[in-house]
Amino acid sequence: MSFLLVASAAGLSFAVPALAQSSDASRIIDEGLNRSRVMLTASELMDGIGPRLTASSNIRKAEDWALAKFQGYGLANVHREPWEFGRGWSFDNASATMVAPRRVRMTVIPIAWTPGTNGAALRAPIIVAPISKVEHFAAWRGKLAGRIVLVSLPGSAVAEDKNPVFQRFSDKDIAEEDRYELPTYDPETLDRRMKRFQFAKQLDEFLRGEGALAWVRKSYRDGGLVSGEGYSYLAGQSPSLPGFELTAEDYRRLARLAKTGPAPTVELMSDARFDDTSRMANNIIADLPGSDPKAGYVMAGAHFDSWVAGDGAADNGAGSAVVLEAARILRQLGVRPKRTIRFALWEGEEQGLLGSRAYIEQHLASRPIPAGMDGLTAYFTWGTRFPIQKKPGYDQLKAYFNMDNGSGKFRGIYAENNSAAAPLLREWMAPYNALGADRIVAGKTGGTDHVFLQAIGLQGFQFIQDPLDYESRVHHSNVDTLDHVRGDDMRQAAVVMAGMLLAAANNDKELPRPPLPTQPTATDPFAYADPDKL
Amino acid sequence: MSFLLVASAAGLSFAVPALAQSSDASRIIDEGLNRSRVMLTASELMDGIGPRLTASSNIRKAEDWALAKFQGYGLANVHREPWEFGRGWSFDNASATMVAPRRVRMTVIPIAWTPGTNGAALRAPIIVAPISKVEHFAAWRGKLAGRIVLVSLPGSAVAEDKNPVFQRFSDKDIAEEDRYELPTYDPETLDRRMKRFQFAKQLDEFLRGEGALAWVRKSYRDGGLVSGEGYSYLAGQSPSLPGFELTAEDYRRLARLAKTGPAPTVELMSDARFDDTSRMANNIIADLPGSDPKAGYVMAGAHFDSWVAGDGAADNGAGSAVVLEAARILRQLGVRPKRTIRFALWEGEEQGLLGSRAYIEQHLASRPIPAGMDGLTAYFTWGTRFPIQKKPGYDQLKAYFNMDNGSGKFRGIYAENNSAAAPLLREWMAPYNALGADRIVAGKTGGTDHVFLQAIGLQGFQFIQDPLDYESRVHHSNVDTLDHVRGDDMRQAAVVMAGMLLAAANNDKELPRPPLPTQPTATDPFAYADPDKL
Repeated sequence: MSFLLVASAAGLSFAVPALAQSSDASRIIDEGLNRSRVMLTASELMDGIGPRLTASSNIRKAEDWALAKFQGYGLANVHREPWEFGRGWSFDNASATMVAPRRVRMTVIPIAWTPGTNGAALRAPIIVAPISKVEHFAAWRGKLAGRIVLVSLPGSAVAEDKNPVFQRFSDKDIAEEDRYELPTYDPETLDRRMKRFQFAKQLDEFLRGEGALAWVRKSYRDGGLVSGEGYSYLAGQSPSLPGFELTAEDYRRLARLAKTGPAPTVELMSDARFDDTSRMANNIIADLPGSDPKAGYVMAGAHFDSWVAGDGAADNGAGSAVVLEAARILRQLGVRPKRTIRFALWEGEEQGLLGSRAYIEQHLASRPIPAGMDGLTAYFTWGTRFPIQKKPGYDQLKAYFNMDNGSGKFRGIYAENNSAAAPLLREWMAPYNALGADRIVAGKTGGTDHVFLQAIGLQGFQFIQDPLDYESRVHHSNVDTLDHVRGDDMRQAAVVMAGMLLAAANNDKELPRPPLPTQPTATDPFAYADPDKL
Repeated sequence: MSFLLVASAAGLSFAVPALAQSSDASRIIDEGLNRSRVMLTASELMDGIGPRLTASSNIRKAEDWALAKFQGYGLANVHREPWEFGRGWSFDNASATMVAPRRVRMTVIPIAWTPGTNGAALRAPIIVAPISKVEHFAAWRGKLAGRIVLVSLPGSAVAEDKNPVFQRFSDKDIAEEDRYELPTYDPETLDRRMKRFQFAKQLDEFLRGEGALAWVRKSYRDGGLVSGEGYSYLAGQSPSLPGFELTAEDYRRLARLAKTGPAPTVELMSDARFDDTSRMANNIIADLPGSDPKAGYVMAGAHFDSWVAGDGAADNGAGSAVVLEAARILRQLGVRPKRTIRFALWEGEEQGLLGSRAYIEQHLASRPIPAGMDGLTAYFTWGTRFPIQKKPGYDQLKAYFNMDNGSGKFRGIYAENNSAAAPLLREWMAPYNALGADRIVAGKTGGTDHVFLQAIGLQGFQFIQDPLDYESRVHHSNVDTLDHVRGDDMRQAAVVMAGMLLAAANNDKELPRPPLPTQPTATDPFAYADPDKL
């Protein structure tokens, strides 16, 4: 059957958009693969600006850069959307040296949002006092004065890690994700998360009360890596003692020496400081305006903030650069989609998906705080408060695509338990199948910025990405640098991101929404609470 | 058939030693597994003393410790055997910071036997000038003055390393080693090795002549690891410029920034210094005397020296601790072998198997220097000069067992192309088969202290060891620490080492010797020299 025959038939209104889409796809692929800017964009962000802790002066610099990028591409409505976060924090220098029984330069990072040592050396004997919950305090009372306290369980040997350093998914790996994920609801999860948050404060108060000088924890990875995550970013919640993270190797050496001889003496230094110039964080928003003001918008996003051990490259400079590049490609092609395409760079993701949540509160839905609930509880219960109250913007958002699984190429997309969306996702991804993005799986991914959109019943998705060395060594670590990000993967991701956005913006159909969530019931109503779980 | 029947028969003289050996094996296993000291010994050496660069003050401390250990076990003839090495070298502190275009603390190690910066900060812009042979100098003439020179090719991304971080051999892996290794002889190998050695000096002279301030190379591994090997240890060969090694990530970031903008400015500091108190290195020797002075001796050895990035744990504190533990076990059991069992800890292995070679020159054989050969050539040609002149001690050494493949348990032993030795090795290892040491393979291993014994026609062997994470991250690196060494593996290795030694010392038969090597002929007489090979 020839094209002319089809065009003259009743199928016209279907055939023409399909052909237009196919032509767009070819142009997207051409622009994204042959005239890519994504690795140069990545280099400006990751090498040039570097780590971007939420509310730090460095992320403010990065915001200016991102705004200029979007404006340079010619996008509309480019702006910051501020939301209240907490304190700024940064450090330039830190060191940890074992000075007795012998001298060892150790690899160290100050824990985020703990105070520094005013740049001076803090020298003291260590004590290994594994403390992970309030119940452990009693055993160490009266023993910590004047000490640097090692609070992690040291363990005696590295893990026998049989996983490859660097991985690409096999078809079988991906097929395993193609299953509806049964809901689990444990009412204690929230309680545990709050207790963990509160424990940082309780530990700090305990250690200070005992006269300890600083605390040190072990990196959760072997192999000389550190990450430095910390969560005491709220104003009024800052700890009084400096906290440090050592490599697992350096930490265990100290612990072994403390077992076989006199406590080693350690010298710690950190010039970490707080910056209370502003307690606001900012989301960055930019639009490629649609032709039909009533058609709503589709959106791509990635978190812009990072931890500070490395350059925030795979996590999540990669996602940020791909979102920027998708915007550049679409703008460069001069497409005028039916729906507006919005690009978002979130902050505060690493502290609990806070930026995307702020966007929801500002534009999409709110979850009112019950009378009598305290502020901290309200802060933590956002995702589990009912009912959900829609805002006028709720119905405008038709699809959200997130990138935050490292820098590996897109192998497909998770339907996120929204099985009804799979056929359209499959259709939209079809032009990119030969680039390696060809699998729509039923499963869910968690832990990043599409999650709260799902929690209010909207269509939030995340791509399946090749893992590369993200989990083995890069995620949050001191080697989260641009050389762990690969050009071929990034170019492919930007092409697929741009293609999915344009298809979602132009398609006659909208992705079906999941049902609006309601208060779940415990999946195991017969379970008893484990008193040892914190 | 009962024991009494055997004992009363003509087979007595065979049956009794066999039974005695079996009983010895059980006692070795019992002592080595149930009352092991090997991990405490390892901890004293690796944690307590730490890295042991040849001729450093720290290795002198370690020598005292090892002598005391052997003496404490009650061994005889415990002594140092000095041999001329070169200069002492050490450092306590070093740092590398990128100060422009932004501030980044980098992970650095001074290259061994390069001078420090007198502890002061050396601040200069970098230049990326990949130089790996003299022919590259011309391109950079006139461009290096006042610069910190990055001499490695940066590459743009980390390797897609699909190997597991941590490995144990499968039976198939080991079976692949069971093949006679065909000889290869390339007369240019030696020439290349000498040229490489001389190139360090030529590079230093070139850089100094051009007014460069320091040079920096890239770690050969990804993932934040550094090692710091350097070879300019001979007196009169010391370079004038400080040399540093950065992690691959830090190095590549500098190189990328230099490509996309103004040259980054870096601040380097090192308090490295030379120590010429003594230019001698020392082998440590200790004997468990045999009952038959005419029966000669068997020997176990491991190199005692290490690089300084880590604690010299898997390389080769592990081998040293196992040799010590084998001595302790045998002495503890009160065995009185027919042949003397000698224990040796070598130095200078990392600089070219120098300690074991010195032992050979002192006790076993010499390879005279032809008239007119210069000193440096003589130094490098030791293993390839003919004829070999036997010394009186040559015929006394009946077997040598070396350990230097990391800290993994023994899976068997390489027959090292000495196929005739395999049956006896198999017999001696039989009592330990159930501990996992059960494979005698024909293949060879290179690069450590049994090699020069083979090069003079003696019976030098190395064990097959599970690789663990030796190659992936530990070997020579800053995570060569005790927590990468596993107690179960070490205890097993010490048991098998002790068992093989006692069997070799008591057996009626001696391991057959390989033929005395003669000048080989090139294996490919039709090859042309590649002019691009350095």
